Amino acid sequence: MSLIVQKFGGSSVADEDKMRHVAQRIVETRRAGHQVVAVVSAMGKTTNNLLNMARDLAKDPSRRELDMLLACGERISMSLLSMAIQELGEDCISLTGPQSGIRTTDNHFNARITDVKAGRVERELERGRIVVVAGYQGMNSRGEVTTLGRGGSDTTAVAVAAGVNADRCEIYSDVDGVYTADPRIVETARPMPEISYVEMTELAHHGASVLNPRAVEYAWRRDVEVRARCTFNDAPGTIIHEREAGDEAKVLGVACHKELIWVSLRGKDRVAGLGDKVLKAIEKNDIFVDDTGDDGERRDMLIATEDIANLDIFADGLRDQFDDRISVSTDLGSVSAVGLHTGEDPDILRKAEAALERAGVGVRISFTREHSLTCLVEAAQVGDAMRALHAVFLEDAKQAREVA
Amino acid sequence: MSLIVQKFGGSSVADEDKMRHVAQRIVETRRAGHQVVAVVSAMGKTTNNLLNMARDLAKDPSRRELDMLLACGERISMSLLSMAIQELGEDCISLTGPQSGIRTTDNHFNARITDVKAGRVERELERGRIVVVAGYQGMNSRGEVTTLGRGGSDTTAVAVAAGVNADRCEIYSDVDGVYTADPRIVETARPMPEISYVEMTELAHHGASVLNPRAVEYAWRRDVEVRARCTFNDAPGTIIHEREAGDEAKVLGVACHKELIWVSLRGKDRVAGLGDKVLKAIEKNDIFVDDTGDDGERRDMLIATEDIANLDIFADGLRDQFDDRISVSTDLGSVSAVGLHTGEDPDILRKAEAALERAGVGVRISFTREHSLTCLVEAAQVGDAMRALHAVFLEDAKQAREVA
Repeated sequence: MSLIVQKFGGSSVADEDKMRHVAQRIVETRRAGHQVVAVVSAMGKTTNNLLNMARDLAKDPSRRELDMLLACGERISMSLLSMAIQELGEDCISLTGPQSGIRTTDNHFNARITDVKAGRVERELERGRIVVVAGYQGMNSRGEVTTLGRGGSDTTAVAVAAGVNADRCEIYSDVDGVYTADPRIVETARPMPEISYVEMTELAHHGASVLNPRAVEYAWRRDVEVRARCTFNDAPGTIIHEREAGDEAKVLGVACHKELIWVSLRGKDRVAGLGDKVLKAIEKNDIFVDDTGDDGERRDMLIATEDIANLDIFADGLRDQFDDRISVSTDLGSVSAVGLHTGEDPDILRKAEAALERAGVGVRISFTREHSLTCLVEAAQVGDAMRALHAVFLEDAKQAREVA
Repeated sequence: MSLIVQKFGGSSVADEDKMRHVAQRIVETRRAGHQVVAVVSAMGKTTNNLLNMARDLAKDPSRRELDMLLACGERISMSLLSMAIQELGEDCISLTGPQSGIRTTDNHFNARITDVKAGRVERELERGRIVVVAGYQGMNSRGEVTTLGRGGSDTTAVAVAAGVNADRCEIYSDVDGVYTADPRIVETARPMPEISYVEMTELAHHGASVLNPRAVEYAWRRDVEVRARCTFNDAPGTIIHEREAGDEAKVLGVACHKELIWVSLRGKDRVAGLGDKVLKAIEKNDIFVDDTGDDGERRDMLIATEDIANLDIFADGLRDQFDDRISVSTDLGSVSAVGLHTGEDPDILRKAEAALERAGVGVRISFTREHSLTCLVEAAQVGDAMRALHAVFLEDAKQAREVA
């Protein structure tokens, strides 16, 4: 008998039929002899609908009240899922984030899980029950409900799995696991059987959106084996775990940011005098920055644009503040190749740049990190660049034939 | 400075515009110098929608899970209302039933409030905040969320008012208070300025649905002055409080059950041998019975039909179980006249029966209680009977002219 945590996202429980399907899937796992904790997101568009109502009533709604509001989305789906499981004849109970012992930092709307006091969940499991846990929420030190930010239910699942010492954590969605590239961009992309925590983190960092990066980081820290699977078929999906690197650096997947802003400082004085101020000016808006850090002569920052309401206003704001001492470039995107130690092998970078050149994609600048390389290209060429990198690193002759 | 509890029902917060209107109303009370606790129901049809989803997923959903589900309705409206109030510039916080210290009996889906531990609400008021409380819910001794049954938010409001020792409790809805009769049936019905707890309880007992009977009973027990008002105008509404009776018994209002089942036992042996068994057979279905009790020779039970899915099946079931030893009559309704000591004055009963006779309404049987009299009539004649009783007891010549 194993103890399995299964997490189902919003699209997996979007309506009553899908809810029944998920219930069936959970009950099958239980009847195969396992203990099951199911973590569930809000149904379909519930969270967005609630947010829209809030924003209709208040320009800048209180985050404490937003958390009170949004936490209802997962509570609705957890109790409905519990009823659907009971209807199939299994004993089941739903627990809110606070009831499940999910403790978080104090900050509302984007809290982080600090601990899971899993006593209640364990007691319910010992009574032979399936436990359904509301994802995306917890309780802070003041006893207030908090939410975990977008994709937070993934983190709930991993944290609960660590808390109850589960044998594995399965994250279900509407795709067959982690792909070698976004299949909407690269037709020949395929699910990968396994990936290490560090590579998964790196892929997410460079734009892949399958799994929440915080969830991967939590799994890594607590050594929870995660399996990303599809709700609607029996494909094996992708195992995310600690993986030994082979002798040779090898690209495992490619990812992209379709649009980003590139801020660059050149020259010792500017880097030393301005670098940290520029970073602070960007980060004060709660925006994710990929910062190369100060290497003495140059410093580059890549700013993902999903968090920015108006790119031009944002870029002009930076230019106004720091005038021509920094360069702010827009209309760019990035493509990255990820794999253990790929960033440390200059042959791989050369191979990537050559492939992009052959595909007619101009590279503005390249960066490497330990396990990845990244090329900045025109935003309009990101798709071509992705397909070129995927072809050269991830499609051998045989695969190319199969696809054709 | 007074401390005022204001309760807004589902139709008062059915959409964002109405929510803003309610927020405005609360803020005006605050700015007039009062402390305000607002108790709020779920928006519009939310509770029904959630219930329908539950019943789609499970034939007989677990009541514990139903409570988890339904409690979200009020939590959504409380946090949205709180945001709307904050948007108007007032400090405000929303609290769930459990956070507001509402303690209930253990039974799910139809719990009763046992106590209100108002410490948190009081602390928030002392900080100068408007407090928005989720109606209809509380927490039982096991720490689980419970709900209070239909109309439970009225009880929440009264219980919170008692708990914080409020100066008054205002129950807002889409009508101008308690009417002398249901205005959909009696066109000349008008709001009454005041009514005593016992009369209000009696009116509700006989079919008036303005205020939840448990809420009235709670207010009576804890001596909370309740004012029933309309959300959408400034009419004074109806005060429900302890009222001194005048010398003369006087009808204050009329009410009806449009449909009921009359069960009667006649003869000493049957009453003694069967009465309690019949009552038990009815009550085991969680159905409200108005039982005259055993007077030695006869015993009558009036069964309101709202709780019964299929009247004929229910009536036939009783007939099968007790055969011709009891009489089970359907196709009946009741009309009642309510006022302090009206049931003790035989002149009032005679006047009622004469008025019904003049209106061509046949009375099958009449009952009296201390503060009411009730006549059973054909279901089809309930409307005529209501208008006849209202005319004779509640419309004098002057009023009749004004209405005409």
